[in-house]
Amino acid sequence: MSAEREVDREVDVVVVGAGPVGENVADRAARTGLEVVVVEKELVGGECSYWACMPSKALLRSGQALAAARRLPGAAEAVTGALDAAKVLERRDRFTSGWDDSGQAGWLESAGLGLVRGTARLDGPRRVVVETGEGAVTLTARRAVVLATGSVPVLPGVPGLAESRVWTSREATSAQAVPGRLVVLGGGVVGCELAQAWARLGSRVTLLARSGLLTGQEDFAGELVAAALRADGVDVRFGAQLSRVSRDDAGVHVVLADGSTVDADEFLVATGRRPTTSGIGLETVGLEDGGALEVDDTGLVAGVEGSWLYAAGDVSGRPKLTHQGKYGGRVVGDAITARASGALIGDAPAWSRWTTTADHAAVPQVVFTDPEVAQVGLTAAQARERGIDVKVVDYEIGDVAGASLVADGYTGKARMVVDEQRRVVVGVTFVGQDVAELLHSATIAVVGEVPLDRLWHAVPSYPTISEVWLRLLETYGL
Amino acid sequence: MSAEREVDREVDVVVVGAGPVGENVADRAARTGLEVVVVEKELVGGECSYWACMPSKALLRSGQALAAARRLPGAAEAVTGALDAAKVLERRDRFTSGWDDSGQAGWLESAGLGLVRGTARLDGPRRVVVETGEGAVTLTARRAVVLATGSVPVLPGVPGLAESRVWTSREATSAQAVPGRLVVLGGGVVGCELAQAWARLGSRVTLLARSGLLTGQEDFAGELVAAALRADGVDVRFGAQLSRVSRDDAGVHVVLADGSTVDADEFLVATGRRPTTSGIGLETVGLEDGGALEVDDTGLVAGVEGSWLYAAGDVSGRPKLTHQGKYGGRVVGDAITARASGALIGDAPAWSRWTTTADHAAVPQVVFTDPEVAQVGLTAAQARERGIDVKVVDYEIGDVAGASLVADGYTGKARMVVDEQRRVVVGVTFVGQDVAELLHSATIAVVGEVPLDRLWHAVPSYPTISEVWLRLLETYGL
Repeated sequence: MSAEREVDREVDVVVVGAGPVGENVADRAARTGLEVVVVEKELVGGECSYWACMPSKALLRSGQALAAARRLPGAAEAVTGALDAAKVLERRDRFTSGWDDSGQAGWLESAGLGLVRGTARLDGPRRVVVETGEGAVTLTARRAVVLATGSVPVLPGVPGLAESRVWTSREATSAQAVPGRLVVLGGGVVGCELAQAWARLGSRVTLLARSGLLTGQEDFAGELVAAALRADGVDVRFGAQLSRVSRDDAGVHVVLADGSTVDADEFLVATGRRPTTSGIGLETVGLEDGGALEVDDTGLVAGVEGSWLYAAGDVSGRPKLTHQGKYGGRVVGDAITARASGALIGDAPAWSRWTTTADHAAVPQVVFTDPEVAQVGLTAAQARERGIDVKVVDYEIGDVAGASLVADGYTGKARMVVDEQRRVVVGVTFVGQDVAELLHSATIAVVGEVPLDRLWHAVPSYPTISEVWLRLLETYGL
Repeated sequence: MSAEREVDREVDVVVVGAGPVGENVADRAARTGLEVVVVEKELVGGECSYWACMPSKALLRSGQALAAARRLPGAAEAVTGALDAAKVLERRDRFTSGWDDSGQAGWLESAGLGLVRGTARLDGPRRVVVETGEGAVTLTARRAVVLATGSVPVLPGVPGLAESRVWTSREATSAQAVPGRLVVLGGGVVGCELAQAWARLGSRVTLLARSGLLTGQEDFAGELVAAALRADGVDVRFGAQLSRVSRDDAGVHVVLADGSTVDADEFLVATGRRPTTSGIGLETVGLEDGGALEVDDTGLVAGVEGSWLYAAGDVSGRPKLTHQGKYGGRVVGDAITARASGALIGDAPAWSRWTTTADHAAVPQVVFTDPEVAQVGLTAAQARERGIDVKVVDYEIGDVAGASLVADGYTGKARMVVDEQRRVVVGVTFVGQDVAELLHSATIAVVGEVPLDRLWHAVPSYPTISEVWLRLLETYGL
């Protein structure tokens, strides 16, 4: 019993989860002198570093570059071979450090942060108990506990699916060999990116989607990506309803509601994620398991007295995007510091460093398929739902001189959503090759609420793809 | 004599020069009903379409894409051949339509604009005489005459140079074969871009620069480009002073002041351009030949009474960049229209559609070398010269996760120049692979005068190169 006491610690801040969100919380809170401990039950660096953003883009990038070269006379003739899948997998392994987190754990240490490895759960106000495998550690937080536990994949309740050793995004980003045949269930970002990645690496891929692809985006995004996937040999099937899944020595067998079947070697289920709220002791502080944790714009969890429990990232129900979670993490870290010092009392003003105002106005997202889909702010439909007086402006990116130079037969589309009352841009979507880095221009325009008449003076350099901005503004009527 | 009278015409606006600048003036002025005639002595579309931006980027782009693929394991193995120069030249010929301007002339017509082919000169207030080759046409302008005559290369006064059949940017962008050996004189944008283009197409290139490369930019721009050119096999020599040039059957022979010599098959002189003001009748309206035409922010030429003579683009002494000239052209076209309708009387307010305010605050430029150089607004030195309280923030782009994914060994640098009094960004430079489309984010930040504390909420999507924005703001101290 005395041994247990010895491992009890009191610190300023306990962060549960050492993914990018937890790292950002901890870093921001610690840099003003607060004592911070981070708890991680798997790898420091989290899903993003090992089983999401980094490996998925590593799987995509080489094929994307090769496709770009093939679209250009002069370069195309030099590309005589196929994408070397083994080399791509090796490169992916480098980006994930072979799933060894000692580098990232070293960073935590160098930043002056404490790390406790184990499974954490709340144990009443300001207390976190960590099962370390070598006994329990009880951490008491003087200032705050931050839940950054992320999310886990949701598997649909299809008979046989749970017993068929399916892939989630983890297996699909960490696989050490290219499956001969791959079925992907889900037409969201993960489904689209990994369908294309594995198809280009040599798999025969079937993509099963209930409705269209990338359904939260403007319609043309999913349409252009579907066309590209088909051009890469992916069998894209819409309206797919699963009846049954089974696995035997010959592989996975998927039976659809219409009676058709798909056989494959692996079956990636990419049908969404849910916040990791189960088993983390929420009931000890009067909260319920299951749904996302509701937070205010400083990250404080609703329904808990005393301003000590924060959440950020996927667990919080805010946008499930690494960068947006990191943003939330920075805000939480700064808000804890400001409340500790008395610089922040009560609510924080919008757009201050203590509020995630952009979560409501300007969430950017890039889908790293080829063509890329880059979107920020509101789609036309979302803007109309909010009652905004909307003007929608579309432009074919291929008609921009800069795009025609980037690739022969460049296909892409841009949409600008304007709030006519305020005469500002509230949303932009770009779909096409090499538009990912174009997105931040739109993000700054939306966040900065730069009036259209001022945007007119932001001259895009010639001949870049960015000249689509000029065309959008001209088409708008400037 | 009566025959001559028959070809005299009175119109609202006469635009001299059908390059992109003249086209924009004409288009903007005509869309509100003014009758516009454009005069062109060479090709409709101008330097940019046939001998500058378009062909130079077409010469660069295929090599750039191939280099990108070679930096990626998996893709590199598929690139077994060399850049096919003949195919690149063919593609370049498509972008210049084989130097046939019927397409662009057709566009002028479809836009309701008149075209007179011939050499124009002013003949007193509001009068332009055009030598068409089939007699003179006199055009009288009710509203305005706009000079958009562009610029011509300047050849340095080196003995023998003028007689050595040197290349200017025209020959260097339209050449139908790859020279075995090429000497390039000049370390500016044209010299750097074309040295790399021809080196990658197979020339043995020597680049002679008086001082460094890209000397108007931040120092690291020229340094990174020089390293890249050398890696492409270009012999880059600084401090080069020419003594003598000659040509014989064996090629061109360049003798330097230090006694060293360079022999080559072609010799590109890229040492700057001067405004085309000679021989255009300036003396008939009380102006002098030679220098650039001084204009106010609506494009009106200084020293001419009656608000009828405008200039835009290279001839005006404003930035010699296609996009900035087009911007000036749009402003001039709109100002003419507004003065005609009475909507604009006297001076126009800053940042209105009738002023080229961005010429003073936010001129963007991309150098399409590999690495690209993308810069907008003020360099650190320029900001200090203006007396701004400057904070300079640098960041290695290769340390951004998105950049490390784009290319193994990514090398690049970003600099943000902050006006500490106003807490806004006044200049940004990005150097690195694939940064061209990143520039517009900086242009919008500078033009929109978006405060740093608001930019903090413009979240870059992960993992893009654009995340360098977050790193710059963190490094600044946010």
